Amino acid sequence: MSNRSAEITAAYAAATPGLGAGHALEAKLIGPAAYAARLSAARDAVNDAGLDAVLLGFGADMRYLTGYAAPALERLTMLVIPANGAPTLIVPRLEAGMAGDAPAMRGGHVACVTFGETDDPFALVATAVKAGGRPGSAARGVAVSDRLWSTFLIRIEAALRTHGSITQTQLASHVIGKLRMVKSAEEAALLRGAGRAVDTVVMAITSGKLLGRTENDVAREVRERLNGAGHEVSSFAIVGSGPNSASPHHEASSRVIDAGDAIVLDIGGVFGGYGSDTTRSIWVTGLNGEVPPTDDYLRRYEVLKRSHQAAMDHVRPGVSCESVDAAARAVIDAAGEGARFFHRTGHGIGLEEHEDPYIVAGNTTKLVPGHAFSIEPGIYVEGVNGARIEDIVLCGDSAVDALNHTKRDLYVVAG
Amino acid sequence: MSNRSAEITAAYAAATPGLGAGHALEAKLIGPAAYAARLSAARDAVNDAGLDAVLLGFGADMRYLTGYAAPALERLTMLVIPANGAPTLIVPRLEAGMAGDAPAMRGGHVACVTFGETDDPFALVATAVKAGGRPGSAARGVAVSDRLWSTFLIRIEAALRTHGSITQTQLASHVIGKLRMVKSAEEAALLRGAGRAVDTVVMAITSGKLLGRTENDVAREVRERLNGAGHEVSSFAIVGSGPNSASPHHEASSRVIDAGDAIVLDIGGVFGGYGSDTTRSIWVTGLNGEVPPTDDYLRRYEVLKRSHQAAMDHVRPGVSCESVDAAARAVIDAAGEGARFFHRTGHGIGLEEHEDPYIVAGNTTKLVPGHAFSIEPGIYVEGVNGARIEDIVLCGDSAVDALNHTKRDLYVVAG
Repeated sequence: MSNRSAEITAAYAAATPGLGAGHALEAKLIGPAAYAARLSAARDAVNDAGLDAVLLGFGADMRYLTGYAAPALERLTMLVIPANGAPTLIVPRLEAGMAGDAPAMRGGHVACVTFGETDDPFALVATAVKAGGRPGSAARGVAVSDRLWSTFLIRIEAALRTHGSITQTQLASHVIGKLRMVKSAEEAALLRGAGRAVDTVVMAITSGKLLGRTENDVAREVRERLNGAGHEVSSFAIVGSGPNSASPHHEASSRVIDAGDAIVLDIGGVFGGYGSDTTRSIWVTGLNGEVPPTDDYLRRYEVLKRSHQAAMDHVRPGVSCESVDAAARAVIDAAGEGARFFHRTGHGIGLEEHEDPYIVAGNTTKLVPGHAFSIEPGIYVEGVNGARIEDIVLCGDSAVDALNHTKRDLYVVAG
Repeated sequence: MSNRSAEITAAYAAATPGLGAGHALEAKLIGPAAYAARLSAARDAVNDAGLDAVLLGFGADMRYLTGYAAPALERLTMLVIPANGAPTLIVPRLEAGMAGDAPAMRGGHVACVTFGETDDPFALVATAVKAGGRPGSAARGVAVSDRLWSTFLIRIEAALRTHGSITQTQLASHVIGKLRMVKSAEEAALLRGAGRAVDTVVMAITSGKLLGRTENDVAREVRERLNGAGHEVSSFAIVGSGPNSASPHHEASSRVIDAGDAIVLDIGGVFGGYGSDTTRSIWVTGLNGEVPPTDDYLRRYEVLKRSHQAAMDHVRPGVSCESVDAAARAVIDAAGEGARFFHRTGHGIGLEEHEDPYIVAGNTTKLVPGHAFSIEPGIYVEGVNGARIEDIVLCGDSAVDALNHTKRDLYVVAG
């Protein structure tokens, strides 16, 4: 084990998933040097793509490259990474202090340019693009972060037209996505911490009271427990009971959990910047076991478990994302339940809850060690109930590396 | 008082700001008929603007027009409101159940078109635009929601080019914004409920322990209390202590609150869909009063209070947004502190935390009854400390109608 690996393992082991654990682990693992290296790789990618610059708004790309989690508000905050020269952060005057405190700015790797409430930040973007564009050639175009709001994109395009000649805009995921998709050992440790933390919440909820509570009340408990277990954000708490368990993205409602309900519990948050996301399925029998799981439900659950396992077994470097999806789907199809599994098998995860690589038909991306994604087949009978099993996994050196460790069986509980 | 006003008042009075109160009040106040009327007004606005359609992604516009709070994820969900014919919601197959349950869909005012994981939703958008475009004239263009992600906009524009001739894209705030900006009596009641709920949190925090706690720990308590007081989302909890109070958008950190600290407490969330947002300033003297507020700080705080009051006194129908900003600024400028008030005086609030109308120089929009916005001057001394006072207000029939009622004096606390 290298010194760095030993350091990461020790930091991970020391981090109890309690209050603030995610942020603390992040601060230990990812320092200014990491951001400098990422920024340098991003500039290389800009040049490889033949672009003048990438323009990144608040969100995951900016956080990945600078450590700055800018507020998602109507004032522009924009990281400009030009083909030549140093990156610039264009930032509202009233957020200059916060931005300057972030690692890449503190480390001197990014210069800040501030603007006041009645200034035009879009002209500043156009100026930065022009200053750092490709020398000795016509302007080629820019890439913008995938989640940049249209209110910014439309005004940036107008400013670029006014100030220069750039007319082509593409999505930055084609440029930056490949950097973010493969997780470093440090990022893997944060995802592992996120998995360990969310598992404690699954254990608490599945061993606590459910019968007679509303979905909303269970969801509230989930959110509090996610925070207590070190998540800085509790992003979602899907508690789908009875017929609601057949609606994959149902969140939570005022429905009261009753005996004979199946429950899909799909929860996650942000832990040191990185997402957790796991799903377990529950059956509530009533206090005297009066409504046990139906034979149909149990039969479908066994199919689902084999589907999940088949996808897990299939993961290794060199196999395609779509073949992992196919492995999960084949089991459910063979059981005649294919029409009831109507979503992809999984999504990548990292600084975003859903990101590349997607585990879906048509995605021929080949897995490499460090790819992080969910495996989450589901079977849903509309109006009746449904079930899903979800783990976050890393593609390891030779096999899958699961980050969730609660049991994958159906949780049959009395009350 | 009309029957409807009496009904709203009674529903508001009956709603104790406890767990789930926001959602319950929303369900009581805003029914399918309201959405039908809003959709009809939106179609009129599309025609008035000479557009073929507005295209609204997840977010406030969609929620305003349909009651559907779609998940903010990478699958497209899009409400197409064409110049002619009925609106269509294009929605992922796995979210069809949720979407169909929302008021406007349940009421039959919007038809749902679903798509599977490997289908092309952008072609569906282009088809819907073409089907409902303006008859007997060339295509005119579309407007998209301001916060639509670039990953959607770029692919929608490509699909529109492929399927038709629309090349002009503008922002939907120019079309839908004027509908959302003036709050109905029902929306005003929800904002009032949000204000009442957040006030209980301010009272709890300012009368509880602060000395020796981290900003993060106080922020955690704020978030829990916001949820306990009926907010479905606790959006932000700015706890800026000591020098951090001089950074207006500082959130919270591991800094431990000490005697002699000023604290800016700026908190808010979502209550029945509508935002709360209030700021109060605190001074922590230490348990034996050992570090009272400095004379400089007290002097600046008095200026700030007069500035806030001047803006409040200025609000009435017919005055411009920029003149409210000027009223706040004049007091601070006259005291020689103008350079330390470097942000606008306020922002609109409703289904979004920040929306039109903005209270800022250059905004000549004239206030009308039902405009809802913040008044929040601040004075910041970099590296030392700062203070801000913020209320959400409605423009009433003849004067300001404040929605926050905690005292606006400096909260001087021992520990």
